[in-house]
Amino acid sequence: MSGNFNITRAARAIVRVTDLNAARDFYVNGLGFIETESDDTFIYLRGLEERGHHSYVLKKADQPGVEVISYKVTTEEDLDNLADKLMEKGMQPKWFEKGSQRALDRSFRVQDVSGIPVEFFCTMDTVERMLQRYDQYKGSKMQRIDHFNCMVPDVEKAYDFYIKELGYACSEYTATKDEDIWAAWLHRKPTVHDVAFMNGKGPRLHHVGFWLNDPMSIIDTCDVLASLGYGDNIERGPGRHGLSNAFFLYLRDPDGNRVELYTGDYFTGDSDFEPIRWDLDDPQRATFWGHKAPDSWFNEAMEFVDSNTGERITVEDAKLDQRKPNFIV
Amino acid sequence: MSGNFNITRAARAIVRVTDLNAARDFYVNGLGFIETESDDTFIYLRGLEERGHHSYVLKKADQPGVEVISYKVTTEEDLDNLADKLMEKGMQPKWFEKGSQRALDRSFRVQDVSGIPVEFFCTMDTVERMLQRYDQYKGSKMQRIDHFNCMVPDVEKAYDFYIKELGYACSEYTATKDEDIWAAWLHRKPTVHDVAFMNGKGPRLHHVGFWLNDPMSIIDTCDVLASLGYGDNIERGPGRHGLSNAFFLYLRDPDGNRVELYTGDYFTGDSDFEPIRWDLDDPQRATFWGHKAPDSWFNEAMEFVDSNTGERITVEDAKLDQRKPNFIV
Amino acid sequence: MSGNFNITRAARAIVRVTDLNAARDFYVNGLGFIETESDDTFIYLRGLEERGHHSYVLKKADQPGVEVISYKVTTEEDLDNLADKLMEKGMQPKWFEKGSQRALDRSFRVQDVSGIPVEFFCTMDTVERMLQRYDQYKGSKMQRIDHFNCMVPDVEKAYDFYIKELGYACSEYTATKDEDIWAAWLHRKPTVHDVAFMNGKGPRLHHVGFWLNDPMSIIDTCDVLASLGYGDNIERGPGRHGLSNAFFLYLRDPDGNRVELYTGDYFTGDSDFEPIRWDLDDPQRATFWGHKAPDSWFNEAMEFVDSNTGERITVEDAKLDQRKPNFIV
Amino acid sequence: MSGNFNITRAARAIVRVTDLNAARDFYVNGLGFIETESDDTFIYLRGLEERGHHSYVLKKADQPGVEVISYKVTTEEDLDNLADKLMEKGMQPKWFEKGSQRALDRSFRVQDVSGIPVEFFCTMDTVERMLQRYDQYKGSKMQRIDHFNCMVPDVEKAYDFYIKELGYACSEYTATKDEDIWAAWLHRKPTVHDVAFMNGKGPRLHHVGFWLNDPMSIIDTCDVLASLGYGDNIERGPGRHGLSNAFFLYLRDPDGNRVELYTGDYFTGDSDFEPIRWDLDDPQRATFWGHKAPDSWFNEAMEFVDSNTGERITVEDAKLDQRKPNFIV
Repeated sequence: MSGNFNITRAARAIVRVTDLNAARDFYVNGLGFIETESDDTFIYLRGLEERGHHSYVLKKADQPGVEVISYKVTTEEDLDNLADKLMEKGMQPKWFEKGSQRALDRSFRVQDVSGIPVEFFCTMDTVERMLQRYDQYKGSKMQRIDHFNCMVPDVEKAYDFYIKELGYACSEYTATKDEDIWAAWLHRKPTVHDVAFMNGKGPRLHHVGFWLNDPMSIIDTCDVLASLGYGDNIERGPGRHGLSNAFFLYLRDPDGNRVELYTGDYFTGDSDFEPIRWDLDDPQRATFWGHKAPDSWFNEAMEFVDSNTGERITVEDAKLDQRKPNFIV
Repeated sequence: MSGNFNITRAARAIVRVTDLNAARDFYVNGLGFIETESDDTFIYLRGLEERGHHSYVLKKADQPGVEVISYKVTTEEDLDNLADKLMEKGMQPKWFEKGSQRALDRSFRVQDVSGIPVEFFCTMDTVERMLQRYDQYKGSKMQRIDHFNCMVPDVEKAYDFYIKELGYACSEYTATKDEDIWAAWLHRKPTVHDVAFMNGKGPRLHHVGFWLNDPMSIIDTCDVLASLGYGDNIERGPGRHGLSNAFFLYLRDPDGNRVELYTGDYFTGDSDFEPIRWDLDDPQRATFWGHKAPDSWFNEAMEFVDSNTGERITVEDAKLDQRKPNFIV
Repeated sequence: MSGNFNITRAARAIVRVTDLNAARDFYVNGLGFIETESDDTFIYLRGLEERGHHSYVLKKADQPGVEVISYKVTTEEDLDNLADKLMEKGMQPKWFEKGSQRALDRSFRVQDVSGIPVEFFCTMDTVERMLQRYDQYKGSKMQRIDHFNCMVPDVEKAYDFYIKELGYACSEYTATKDEDIWAAWLHRKPTVHDVAFMNGKGPRLHHVGFWLNDPMSIIDTCDVLASLGYGDNIERGPGRHGLSNAFFLYLRDPDGNRVELYTGDYFTGDSDFEPIRWDLDDPQRATFWGHKAPDSWFNEAMEFVDSNTGERITVEDAKLDQRKPNFIV
Repeated sequence: MSGNFNITRAARAIVRVTDLNAARDFYVNGLGFIETESDDTFIYLRGLEERGHHSYVLKKADQPGVEVISYKVTTEEDLDNLADKLMEKGMQPKWFEKGSQRALDRSFRVQDVSGIPVEFFCTMDTVERMLQRYDQYKGSKMQRIDHFNCMVPDVEKAYDFYIKELGYACSEYTATKDEDIWAAWLHRKPTVHDVAFMNGKGPRLHHVGFWLNDPMSIIDTCDVLASLGYGDNIERGPGRHGLSNAFFLYLRDPDGNRVELYTGDYFTGDSDFEPIRWDLDDPQRATFWGHKAPDSWFNEAMEFVDSNTGERITVEDAKLDQRKPNFIV
């Protein structure tokens, strides 16, 4: 047991955009997110299934980037216990009191072992769940946040920390011939992942993944985006990953921030589930069928910003050889 | 050869409604028809694929009912030749000059052998085709008008007239043990039908059929209608007919007018296509799978109105025994 | 906290059939279950996603009925702790040693507070997961077991026991005007349910629910069943429940045993999830859209058999008024 | 009027393969074609909807290539009239008597103005239509042949001949800035095309197009092909063409012969349909959304073989500038 706390799931991300209206058009009109509310600095978005106030926050800024990725814990006590645990490990949780962030009760932020700014909270305001408001559904039928995918220089370090200290379980991973872990998919909720780490210059956020109902919702998304003039924002897909079995689509928003639309994974909650190993050279790992990832998808990722100082968080080169990783999911 | 004219397809219907706004909400918000234009008396609707000005006209009236069902012919000369042919048969085509009906060039109306007011025209104004405006798609992804289904007292009389005089072909039919034709599906365009006739008190219009892309569009329609409070307007389906192979949904508009959403038929354009015979007692004919039709679907149909006199067109009882006809498609 | 044990999920059912070959044809050819293995008495079935040896067992017998419904726990220690807990409550767990049931490590069975024979185990043999063997997919694309639905005379007693003693959480429930719980959906895995209880003569098993990927898999199932002559085995649906948001299809196997094909529910794993209350008289609760349940679906359910004595387990009448419960999901 | 004959539709192709068993595995197990019959030299394939004996013939040969593409005419008299017409134009129809080709009544072959070996026939043996044998459906739910796409050196010459002499109509076309026709989609049945011509070295056959029910059938095809080891046979797609609105997938069989799976076009049968013009430089023409065509798709096409001499039919370079034509549908 990792400790006396329980992390529930990936819960939200705060992403910087340079033009709120341009971003709103892309995410709300293009992708069908529900806009819970907004002001001059923030747009708070959620999927049709979500009863939390938001799962994706657009924040006006001069440059794109990511402020924080957040996980929801099970009880308020878990939050304290987790903070204690992280302090024991030499980290410095910074607390945010209730009311200091819209719709959020208290939370804390900390840089994880890879330098990623992560946030934990237990309680968020709830709003109307739109699951059965089918009259509001648009092309993607956007359902809920699913996962984060992060590029980090040392995947094994991240893997060890999330598995051993935070209680995540591994569903699938990619290994080199020397059995170095090249990439790993880790979960708290019983799906393929809440977070994935893959070898690369980092820490950077490769994408935030959102869960859709079915592959047709991804096809419909492509059609709607193209009819609105967002055809060039489709970076990769539709296709299927061997790893995770996901049917996927990767998009870049008007500022270049990347989201994945994702469906088709499976239940991973059995205690005797054995992580699935993929060889780095297996061609079906990344694309079970379909075309190779474009270079942009390999080379480009979102940088993290220190929300205190406003400065970019320093990135380091990958520890393992840089190879075109066709396998990010 | 039936004559020196060519009928292209089922083209439009003019249906009376008592409340234009209530009807608009049902057809535009609920079903996703495109409203080409409207005034105090008419709403002109079309599907996403259609470049004709309209295929379905809602007309304000004190009582529901149907004014006319219209077919498009291939050339203006065909229109004259067809009128001549019908006059030879003792009918009285009544001409409407260009401009007398919105968006329509000249046309004529006539009561067919069953007493159904039918109209023929060659030319309608064209408007923007919305096929690739996926941002405008709603639940049903409404595509185009497909067919009319009429209850008539004497199916064989209607069958003979449409086949022998008007050049229609039969795709499928239902026969009694005595080989009386109980119902027949007749087409000009190479699909299962432009018009079907079935044994019953008539002439009455059972429904106007609209073509959708796929079964999921019908499922999505149900969800959208239910979320808008139109759950009770779903009369029958979703299900599949054995006859025609159609995946279907039958709806009643706020005035009780019936439309069918329809997909899944097949190409019938080969000259050696042999009509498919179904026995009246074959249980898979009407419902290849799924539940039997409710009584309302059997007993109720739209009455025709004489657009000159404003009076209901007289109906007669069916010639063959009345049996619950599970097979209307 | 309910105790020092953790139940993971609904895991399998053992259902009696009178003709193994007839049942195989229905489940394997009709529904697309994978047959892991079989002998003269048993057929062991699993879904395409499942790596457990089986989730549904057909057992040859003179009469249909249900021997046991089984849940998987997280550790072997949980199994002991759970047995202790149940003994404290006055129940008599009966242990089955490893090897006494095909592919199963040790387990125990007990009658729960409603008299339902339930089984708990931690470890089952694993076999090849067929998730990416798309060449083996048939109509339904059968994925995995999802839940059990039981009719019991006293829903509140069952509700209290599963919530307070076994650690289940309630996702949705139906209440009378007096706030009696008429039916309840309870889960361990973060979906709408692993088990539902509803007011009725019992204990009886209303159905075993299996999870599919999408609504089209249910439509395809109907087409395949009808083409194989199983059209009459479709008892209810396809349709959507308001409660749970499930897109559903209810089937009867050749012996009348009932299964549900099910898709479209949502994530329930947040600790602050508030159970959704439906009024017993809300028409959209049972059928968000679509037709009412047939009487058979209301009146008929599978009886449990004591696997020791071979005798039917006694059923009692429902505690609350019997009303046609359109709401079983 | 082009003449006293009527061509119904694209009807079949005879394609050479070097290994019948390898080809069978790809087309029957991979794509779900129905194998009507076969011998040591031929495999006769049809789609689930087709009642003709075959629409695609695999012929054993030393080298891949195409022997002929065939069109069905409406009456036997049409066949004679068409032959007369072609002789007037200086062509040399070569007749094949009934029985000389499996399941075919008499037919004739001729090289068209581009040098393409085309065949016309009226009558083919009919077999069981499998449309409602859903138990036989595999991944693609393969329905019927739809069209041929040919590369020719002089598109305008082909266009003029098929429009003016053979009675085809144009649905969509691509033009250069000088209004030269770069490519054209021509139809007899009221869909986007029975044949398309595009500027390129030729005559060569770019692909044979088969019609599927919906986009999901294309996604399912990809999954099935990948699970059978045919992932590399997916050359392009899934994606949507702006031109024709088709949702498409291009495949190469084990010999490199190319087929397109195709769905989503529209009704073109109105006499006042105006051909849709696309500019050669419009980026949405070829790919409404999605990735550019790979070079192989541009450069490679199937060569025609003279079925008398067994020699390759000579190809010439394109008349217009060679540019990567993203627009073949």
